[in-house]
Amino acid sequence: MKEDIKPATGRLGILIVGVGGAVATTFITGTLAARKGMVKAIGSISQLAKIKMADKKEKLIKDIVPLTDLNDIVFGGWDIFPDNAYEAAKCAEVLKENDLNLVREELESIKPITAAFDHNWAKRLNGTHIKQTASRWDMVEQIRQDIRNFKSANHCERIVVLWAASTEIYIPLSDEHQSLAALEKAMKENKTDVISPSMCYAYAALTEGAPFVMGAPNLCVDTPAMWELAEKTRMPIAGKDFKSGQTLMKTVLAPMFKTRMLGVSGWFSTNILGNRDGEVLDDPDNFKTKEVSKLSVIDNIFEPEKYPDLYGDVYHKVRINYYPPRKDNKEAWDNIDIFGWMGYPMEIKVNFLCRDSILAAPIALDLVLFSDLAMRAGMWGIQTWLSFFCKSPMHDNEHQPVHDLFTQWRMIKETIRSMVGEQSPGYLD
Amino acid sequence: MKEDIKPATGRLGILIVGVGGAVATTFITGTLAARKGMVKAIGSISQLAKIKMADKKEKLIKDIVPLTDLNDIVFGGWDIFPDNAYEAAKCAEVLKENDLNLVREELESIKPITAAFDHNWAKRLNGTHIKQTASRWDMVEQIRQDIRNFKSANHCERIVVLWAASTEIYIPLSDEHQSLAALEKAMKENKTDVISPSMCYAYAALTEGAPFVMGAPNLCVDTPAMWELAEKTRMPIAGKDFKSGQTLMKTVLAPMFKTRMLGVSGWFSTNILGNRDGEVLDDPDNFKTKEVSKLSVIDNIFEPEKYPDLYGDVYHKVRINYYPPRKDNKEAWDNIDIFGWMGYPMEIKVNFLCRDSILAAPIALDLVLFSDLAMRAGMWGIQTWLSFFCKSPMHDNEHQPVHDLFTQWRMIKETIRSMVGEQSPGYLD
Amino acid sequence: MKEDIKPATGRLGILIVGVGGAVATTFITGTLAARKGMVKAIGSISQLAKIKMADKKEKLIKDIVPLTDLNDIVFGGWDIFPDNAYEAAKCAEVLKENDLNLVREELESIKPITAAFDHNWAKRLNGTHIKQTASRWDMVEQIRQDIRNFKSANHCERIVVLWAASTEIYIPLSDEHQSLAALEKAMKENKTDVISPSMCYAYAALTEGAPFVMGAPNLCVDTPAMWELAEKTRMPIAGKDFKSGQTLMKTVLAPMFKTRMLGVSGWFSTNILGNRDGEVLDDPDNFKTKEVSKLSVIDNIFEPEKYPDLYGDVYHKVRINYYPPRKDNKEAWDNIDIFGWMGYPMEIKVNFLCRDSILAAPIALDLVLFSDLAMRAGMWGIQTWLSFFCKSPMHDNEHQPVHDLFTQWRMIKETIRSMVGEQSPGYLD
Amino acid sequence: MKEDIKPATGRLGILIVGVGGAVATTFITGTLAARKGMVKAIGSISQLAKIKMADKKEKLIKDIVPLTDLNDIVFGGWDIFPDNAYEAAKCAEVLKENDLNLVREELESIKPITAAFDHNWAKRLNGTHIKQTASRWDMVEQIRQDIRNFKSANHCERIVVLWAASTEIYIPLSDEHQSLAALEKAMKENKTDVISPSMCYAYAALTEGAPFVMGAPNLCVDTPAMWELAEKTRMPIAGKDFKSGQTLMKTVLAPMFKTRMLGVSGWFSTNILGNRDGEVLDDPDNFKTKEVSKLSVIDNIFEPEKYPDLYGDVYHKVRINYYPPRKDNKEAWDNIDIFGWMGYPMEIKVNFLCRDSILAAPIALDLVLFSDLAMRAGMWGIQTWLSFFCKSPMHDNEHQPVHDLFTQWRMIKETIRSMVGEQSPGYLD
Repeated sequence: MKEDIKPATGRLGILIVGVGGAVATTFITGTLAARKGMVKAIGSISQLAKIKMADKKEKLIKDIVPLTDLNDIVFGGWDIFPDNAYEAAKCAEVLKENDLNLVREELESIKPITAAFDHNWAKRLNGTHIKQTASRWDMVEQIRQDIRNFKSANHCERIVVLWAASTEIYIPLSDEHQSLAALEKAMKENKTDVISPSMCYAYAALTEGAPFVMGAPNLCVDTPAMWELAEKTRMPIAGKDFKSGQTLMKTVLAPMFKTRMLGVSGWFSTNILGNRDGEVLDDPDNFKTKEVSKLSVIDNIFEPEKYPDLYGDVYHKVRINYYPPRKDNKEAWDNIDIFGWMGYPMEIKVNFLCRDSILAAPIALDLVLFSDLAMRAGMWGIQTWLSFFCKSPMHDNEHQPVHDLFTQWRMIKETIRSMVGEQSPGYLD
Repeated sequence: MKEDIKPATGRLGILIVGVGGAVATTFITGTLAARKGMVKAIGSISQLAKIKMADKKEKLIKDIVPLTDLNDIVFGGWDIFPDNAYEAAKCAEVLKENDLNLVREELESIKPITAAFDHNWAKRLNGTHIKQTASRWDMVEQIRQDIRNFKSANHCERIVVLWAASTEIYIPLSDEHQSLAALEKAMKENKTDVISPSMCYAYAALTEGAPFVMGAPNLCVDTPAMWELAEKTRMPIAGKDFKSGQTLMKTVLAPMFKTRMLGVSGWFSTNILGNRDGEVLDDPDNFKTKEVSKLSVIDNIFEPEKYPDLYGDVYHKVRINYYPPRKDNKEAWDNIDIFGWMGYPMEIKVNFLCRDSILAAPIALDLVLFSDLAMRAGMWGIQTWLSFFCKSPMHDNEHQPVHDLFTQWRMIKETIRSMVGEQSPGYLD
Repeated sequence: MKEDIKPATGRLGILIVGVGGAVATTFITGTLAARKGMVKAIGSISQLAKIKMADKKEKLIKDIVPLTDLNDIVFGGWDIFPDNAYEAAKCAEVLKENDLNLVREELESIKPITAAFDHNWAKRLNGTHIKQTASRWDMVEQIRQDIRNFKSANHCERIVVLWAASTEIYIPLSDEHQSLAALEKAMKENKTDVISPSMCYAYAALTEGAPFVMGAPNLCVDTPAMWELAEKTRMPIAGKDFKSGQTLMKTVLAPMFKTRMLGVSGWFSTNILGNRDGEVLDDPDNFKTKEVSKLSVIDNIFEPEKYPDLYGDVYHKVRINYYPPRKDNKEAWDNIDIFGWMGYPMEIKVNFLCRDSILAAPIALDLVLFSDLAMRAGMWGIQTWLSFFCKSPMHDNEHQPVHDLFTQWRMIKETIRSMVGEQSPGYLD
Repeated sequence: MKEDIKPATGRLGILIVGVGGAVATTFITGTLAARKGMVKAIGSISQLAKIKMADKKEKLIKDIVPLTDLNDIVFGGWDIFPDNAYEAAKCAEVLKENDLNLVREELESIKPITAAFDHNWAKRLNGTHIKQTASRWDMVEQIRQDIRNFKSANHCERIVVLWAASTEIYIPLSDEHQSLAALEKAMKENKTDVISPSMCYAYAALTEGAPFVMGAPNLCVDTPAMWELAEKTRMPIAGKDFKSGQTLMKTVLAPMFKTRMLGVSGWFSTNILGNRDGEVLDDPDNFKTKEVSKLSVIDNIFEPEKYPDLYGDVYHKVRINYYPPRKDNKEAWDNIDIFGWMGYPMEIKVNFLCRDSILAAPIALDLVLFSDLAMRAGMWGIQTWLSFFCKSPMHDNEHQPVHDLFTQWRMIKETIRSMVGEQSPGYLD
């Protein structure tokens, strides 16, 4: 495959659902500061990582494929609170005031559009800056108009829409999600229990010619109906659920056990976090969505059907606890029970004192820039090669997701190389 | 490369230096029990791992290449204490008595040959079952005779010699190690300060036509002189220093940070262990050898010269503490200081409650079987493809070692496939 | 106070509810082995601890007051499974088979009486060895008959009944528990939703002249009705909820923060355990009982009303997770957020790899022996001085419980001294 | 005992050795901010703690005995660097700039006197702001003059001298420390290998009528010679070695095991810290002093001679590691191996992410204020009742130190009560 990639000319508008949230404001602040040369874009693959090419030389990804320059980005988005990005960032308490002040004016100029919201899908949230909508179809229409307005007001050539808002409540796939026709019918009939707000954002984005990135574990674009829409509109969709902390660790440790043929009898994962995300996940219905996303990882990597003696009986449990003293400083504690030679047990405990938004921000940047690249390269539908960034990589009914972080990384490298018509220089690269 | 591999006919003698130690007796007991079908060889790549072949089907490694069957193995070796393997294993307190009793008679029949030993190279050890040797050259001659005796008495077709004894004191590479001629001269002149006992074992093994595996971080075969000898004798050498616990973890976590472009400012690793290994490493001269082995890993993976903003200033410290209450149950605690988006710091603490010999035993089995395979396949000298099992993978002056566990695993898979003339079925396999 | 204590003549029958459980079988095995001199009664205050007396000399508690000798103890009890104590202990997987074999015959001779049980009070349990009862009053009558039978068959002079069975579901105090008359009426009217099986055991014990010890957090004897019964029968009651692991730690760390005037903003406690106790607590109704027991500790120690700046806003959360890979090896992980000088935050993480029954067994022994002592000393009702052993020390409506472990220890010392008419030798002793 | 305590009239000068260090600048900043009402003096017993009096009412300590008011304090001191306290505090990186700015001008006005220093006693330090001294006796004379100058320039009525500087190298007690005459002779003969700079500060303080507080584990005032001087001058001496983090934890956990009669087989303590203190302790000679201080704690609490089955074989190891990424945020990791019923082993791991200076600052304040109180109350010599604050509580040859934190707390309470002629209201208070 050698893609004929359109150049990244003009401005790229990044429209964020939840633009006043911790992840979004951290993402925006760091990007603005990075393009002024005040900070490095640490954690960002698109900005910092190098890939070895056929000539055995390593090049920055952004020197291989035509990514949008940070200077060409314009930020905007929706939020259920009216605060501008500076006020919202202060309230999120992720970044120090000194760091926010680096780009204070630009942050203050980012004011949220009223959000499409339905309290039933996130009961712990009570926003004040919300659209009046007659139906889900009307919700779509309003969002489409928002996108058009933003694009023209900001002279953008292209738009990407990113969901950086909360986890919606869990729902299973139902008939309404099986085809585009059924989905549209349900939107028009205003079936609010199967059509979530995030589906409306996604539908609007794709129909307006904007790739859509899902940062939460919401069902949203992970349905045949949306795949059909992505195909019809020739738009990329990417997600879902940023792989930021504990699951990142899992997709590294589990492959280690597997590669070493060490058995696993149990994996207990607990999290404490005190930000808005934690508050939403304190509702069992919303947690269920996240739990499903977090649990699938291990089985996929271990392949218990192939190695029943080693992984046939893994007890896996994931807990998330709302714990306000920590704010955005999410902390994970994992206990892993493994066994080795002659069945002897051993234990590993991992305590990850991370920062949710600090880890998520560069993922947001990369997913947006790579989705935009994919669009210009004519790669529509599920972007499997971006699984690297996701806890629940989307995949259609005929494929299996890949969870192993290092295999995911090879997928990115190979995709980038093949976009410019190159092959891997060797089996280790 | 398609190797013409000799079949694994006849018996394979495994001669272990330190046959009464914790690693050796655990390795022997598990192998004997596994070949009776009493236990699975958990942790062993050679016995359990599967590789995907060109036809996209996965096959057990031992069904792809002709490995020696466990039933064809005969165990023997040297030790500085006269206890048979059953007594020694009880004393090591790694395995429960019930487990030793599974193969008690076979263990009791394994009686150590007197060991070649020099107190100056391991001051904390005081053995009683030691050869009288007139010089290092005489030491070599006696060991060669031991090998020949064992081979004929046990009707072995092939021998592999495995060092599972203690870490010797640190010495730098000196002139005596630069060529085979210089090495032999120093042995004859009995230069006991530059020629360690392990060098005599290795020299004897290679000249007797036996591959040599170095499980400790000793200089030993990691010298131009020995590479010359391996070439001359067409024998494989493998090592060094079993990658069993904390470093195993490091070679998985460091690639994660690297792949994610997360910066690292410090890595503090401490260990507590109470077995004989811990006692030997309580001597600073011996610890130095281990420390050098453990420290190199991180720099190699991080490539600070390519990513100075992320890894240009990593403070790395490794401590090993002799702590008798734990016996063989080595425990590691790592604190890792990382930083992400906008330079914000995060911390990871890993507490690994492992069992040294349980993790090392399957590595010993794999290294022995793969070295024997390499010999039959005509692959002599440093076995780079076995880096997977080693903390300090040997490499000649023109190459760089690979430390990343998953890259090492690809090396094994590609080598196995190419031995039978196959290519990798795809870039992810 | 100088008590006139009756001597500990004759045999003491210890009747355990849940005699086949992990705690009971561990308690019994260790006691039998200790009285044969095969092991020390480690963890037992009554057997090992010394107290300084007025003459400044330290004496073993059992040399100060007339405790029942271990040799005079006879074990019996009820269980919902018919296995004898040896079979039950093997099934519990707490003690190694070698250790059980020390006293195998004696264990085999301990066969459970059919248990009084009601599935609605412990839905995760499905026993097969259960009494048919017409009403709660009938349940009491049958248990009383069991006690009388055991006492005469085993020639016991005295009996103590110990609850070492599961946590029952949570119920609030209701009218039926407010007076003895109301309680008896409810039993006769068979109000099964407010009269739990444990209440029937307690009622039966007290009326048969046996002290009753509550090892779980059940409401049971912690009601005015039962206090009235204890007064009427002149019987001691002790409990509740053995303070074995995480809470033990809390009642030591919390006093440290308090004594040092360090502030606390959050305390997150999680537990993983895989024994039957864990299974029962996986039911939210049963967990509620335990949660209430565990949560009260901190407020009581911190006295936020007196130190609002330090403890006015402590976020305290307790989680218990059923995690089968661990069996009886309960593990606790606590994260504590504290703050010091100028409000700067600090964190403490405690990972306690404990063994539930190993910690509970000596507490069971001590509570039984001290309750028997109290009875002989004429001390009836709530035994406040035994708070040391309990997560939720019982107290009447006019008193506050004491949770600080070291204050509780002073209570024991002072009570023992005063029983023999001595005073504390000094303020530090 | 009812002391006749002089009132705390006039100003109290606090002269700190190491006034530009992390502990001193944190102590000063917090005290200045607290007296302006900007922060609470969290962690300070003298400012916040309450004691129950004979009338059963709790009163603040400072309302019971006449402590110097924070408003009457003047700060000064010596340092080997010339920076004022504001610059030094910024450099120490303990407090945020916003917090330093609360009292910036006052901090800037605190300029260090040139320090008495000898590189041989702290080889890792290279100061530039150092006295020229002809001999140790001359060193004493110069310090005395400094004290007099400060006292008169600042109109102080009383002075306390506090050592908040580095740990000096270890030396054993020698003849020169056995009597005041021998000490003075050695000072005059300039025996620089047995007379450390800290001894000169202490000698100067006491002879100028100022109590001396030793915050490091230096031998200094812990000698018969200094006790003689304290008696002669009627001055209090207090120390040594602030009990701030890991040892604080030990003196709480060890009493728990003891009280519960749980056995201990090993205790491994490691620390990482990156401040100047860590750098000094990276020198084995200086670490030795600290190690001796830290090791004694456990034996004293466990009394292995009385409980040989439980504590007769405790393997105790303490490590301190210089680890620059952490700066002042000292972190401790402890692994404790305990055993219970029937000898079964359990483990506790404590990870304390503390802040060295944040914990030490209120201790400094309390020791200074209580030493000043003691002086006014006529209590000279070793202040045993202040053991609470010290890792190595000083004691003369006829007494044993007390390490248990809660017993130490009783000592403070009883001393305060008896100063005002009251008795303890009950054995639990």
